[in-house]
Amino acid sequence: MNDAPTFHLAARMAHIAPFEVMEIQKLARKLEAEGRDIIHLEIGEPDFRTPQPVVDAAKRALDEQPMRYTSAMGLQALRKAIAQFYADRYGVEISYRRIAVTAGSSAALLLAFGVVLDAGDEVLLADPSYPCNRHFMRTLGGVPKLIPVGTDTQYQLTADLVSRNWGERTRMAMVASPSNPTGTLVAPEEVARMTAAVREKSGTLLMDEIYHGLTYGVDARTALECGDDIFVINSFSKYFHMTGWRLGWLVVPEAYERQVETLAQNLYISPSAPAQHAALACFLRETIAILEQRRAELAQRRDYLIPALESLGFRIPVVPQGAFYLYADCSALTGDSFAFARDVLERAGVAITPGKDFGNNAPERHIRIAYTQPIARLKEAVARIAAITTRNP
Amino acid sequence: MNDAPTFHLAARMAHIAPFEVMEIQKLARKLEAEGRDIIHLEIGEPDFRTPQPVVDAAKRALDEQPMRYTSAMGLQALRKAIAQFYADRYGVEISYRRIAVTAGSSAALLLAFGVVLDAGDEVLLADPSYPCNRHFMRTLGGVPKLIPVGTDTQYQLTADLVSRNWGERTRMAMVASPSNPTGTLVAPEEVARMTAAVREKSGTLLMDEIYHGLTYGVDARTALECGDDIFVINSFSKYFHMTGWRLGWLVVPEAYERQVETLAQNLYISPSAPAQHAALACFLRETIAILEQRRAELAQRRDYLIPALESLGFRIPVVPQGAFYLYADCSALTGDSFAFARDVLERAGVAITPGKDFGNNAPERHIRIAYTQPIARLKEAVARIAAITTRNP
Ligand SMILES: Cc1ncc(COP(=O)(O)O)c(C=O)c1O
Ligand SMILES: Cc1ncc(COP(=O)(O)O)c(C=O)c1O
Repeated sequence: MNDAPTFHLAARMAHIAPFEVMEIQKLARKLEAEGRDIIHLEIGEPDFRTPQPVVDAAKRALDEQPMRYTSAMGLQALRKAIAQFYADRYGVEISYRRIAVTAGSSAALLLAFGVVLDAGDEVLLADPSYPCNRHFMRTLGGVPKLIPVGTDTQYQLTADLVSRNWGERTRMAMVASPSNPTGTLVAPEEVARMTAAVREKSGTLLMDEIYHGLTYGVDARTALECGDDIFVINSFSKYFHMTGWRLGWLVVPEAYERQVETLAQNLYISPSAPAQHAALACFLRETIAILEQRRAELAQRRDYLIPALESLGFRIPVVPQGAFYLYADCSALTGDSFAFARDVLERAGVAITPGKDFGNNAPERHIRIAYTQPIARLKEAVARIAAITTRNP
Repeated sequence: MNDAPTFHLAARMAHIAPFEVMEIQKLARKLEAEGRDIIHLEIGEPDFRTPQPVVDAAKRALDEQPMRYTSAMGLQALRKAIAQFYADRYGVEISYRRIAVTAGSSAALLLAFGVVLDAGDEVLLADPSYPCNRHFMRTLGGVPKLIPVGTDTQYQLTADLVSRNWGERTRMAMVASPSNPTGTLVAPEEVARMTAAVREKSGTLLMDEIYHGLTYGVDARTALECGDDIFVINSFSKYFHMTGWRLGWLVVPEAYERQVETLAQNLYISPSAPAQHAALACFLRETIAILEQRRAELAQRRDYLIPALESLGFRIPVVPQGAFYLYADCSALTGDSFAFARDVLERAGVAITPGKDFGNNAPERHIRIAYTQPIARLKEAVARIAAITTRNP
């Protein structure tokens, strides 16, 4: 019965790359299995656990709730709590009907692209940026148009870059503020200008605000201030420390509400019921107190790590104001960031992410370091990297 | 700032319909808000809760585990437990590496179609069948080719139908056994013949086995018996009663393992960590004992409901051996199943699903009734329908 199986691979898969960081992780696991101590600064998730009030809410819900499919857009109570969060934190009023609760912001991204993009439609985005964005587009037949950005624009798109790069087939622009991998923000005035620029092209703006709440010395403002015609994604993963629960949300322009609901019904049926019941506790005063303490701790880590890495020869020309990443120019230390990341892992036992994951804009000169470990471990990491880089200047 | 927003809808959305049953549900909620008692036989999920050992495992894991992103393919322990389940239950050996744990089988479907289908590629599937299938394909630019099926083939595709309908652009055939909405199975010999027929066309077969375990008087065999080149989806939603947790799996032909992993990394990052820890308890002897008791109860409901509905004038020409659905011909009672479903809801307070959700094959003559309520409630439903239909013969 077992003839040679047929193997036909969809064309999109040629554009959908595995994460380079996975190779680093595989090697890290191998070294750990051999008894090596590895300091993990490669993954986009800090060492903190889900806040206890959220865990407790989940346990209570497990006793009380049947955990059936919820409505595709999520529990009404949670949608209302998220809408209230926009009122409390940003002073922006939005109807809960515009909130789609999703399986991580990952699902939110697929829904937003899914209702807007046709095959062949282009989306402008910064290079470097979060790799999955391009792959969501490719999955749907869309075409990512990577715009190289540098220190002059804090590694972000600008209204001017959007206008200049907008083409015949461009349908959307996408911006993450704070950004992964650079941690930089777009200034509110620039967001307003960008909104206007996209509107002028009759296009759609998608703002990724998933690192909101994790900003240091500044509070990010939401792009929803600039109009009701913007898609905004956010997540319980990062600020709320719920990565593994897979819960996020999409703020939908009213005209797309019904279409987003239809697509969500079909692609996901509903977001996770236990996660939704847990997330209801995210907005409690006691939870927010925990989150803000962690935010302060992340700021300290950043403030330690930037000068420490600079003293090793890394360049961090734009001080990132958010997320938990440093995007460092390592060209004084290596001409090949991927080989360098491997080397740092093998010889120093520190896992970092090579630039390649984030685009084609001088990836060989960049690495991403996530300050997702306590300061003591960061110090140890710096000492270990120093030991191998100063021996080989 | 708030100019008229731009509204451009992706072309795919013209093919992605909301579920008709949602209209029924909206009306049901309205009637309930007015104080009416509604018997819900429209949704694809029974009244049972998640088994207590599974809930307990989740609560323990919440105390012990940090609930971070897991590997994109899922926890190794869970993948191994699923592989073991195939050995124990079906006598089929498969490597755990071929198991991708997913956010419901919904995510499994998108992954399987995603790695195989190019824009314009056709997939053969039965009409009537589960509506999301066509919408997953449309999302990816694929083309569902609905083959009308009837009582002569137990509402299922056959090897012969597959061969006869295979065209230039056909890439896959998809079969659900037991099926939603009909509850019917494909005989093992026919699965073998279909596998051979698809292989002869150098195509790919996707088997949906999510209602396995919910079969009455018969144990379903897995299509994996017929070869290693078949995609199989399954879920913790139905037999394991974990709908709201959003957990399922895909068995992947070895040649596609890496591609499925890459796509899963990008589209989902990982399946839910709490759900995965909970699901580890699904295979415990005590859990299986609970599940088998519920299966016996579902069999009793079916055995009550079929003759009861027939006595009202519904025709159920093929006795369904699985799932928890009756697909009934209601043409003796109405010429318009949608109006009929509305009428039964408004006048009898019983919610059922009109045929339209499942395709274009005489939907006006069919309704789906889910025996997802205890027998006492089913009796009440039958009495109420009798009261309105016998008054209006
Ligand atoms: C910029 C950005 N957007 C979206 C996501 C998706 O995260 P999630 O699906 O956990 O919400 C990530 C994850 O790292 C990210 O860095
Ligand atoms: C035939 C069939 N396949 C797949 C699914 C998807 O279910 P889930 O995503 O909960 O596993 C369903 C849900 O009702 C179904 O009926």
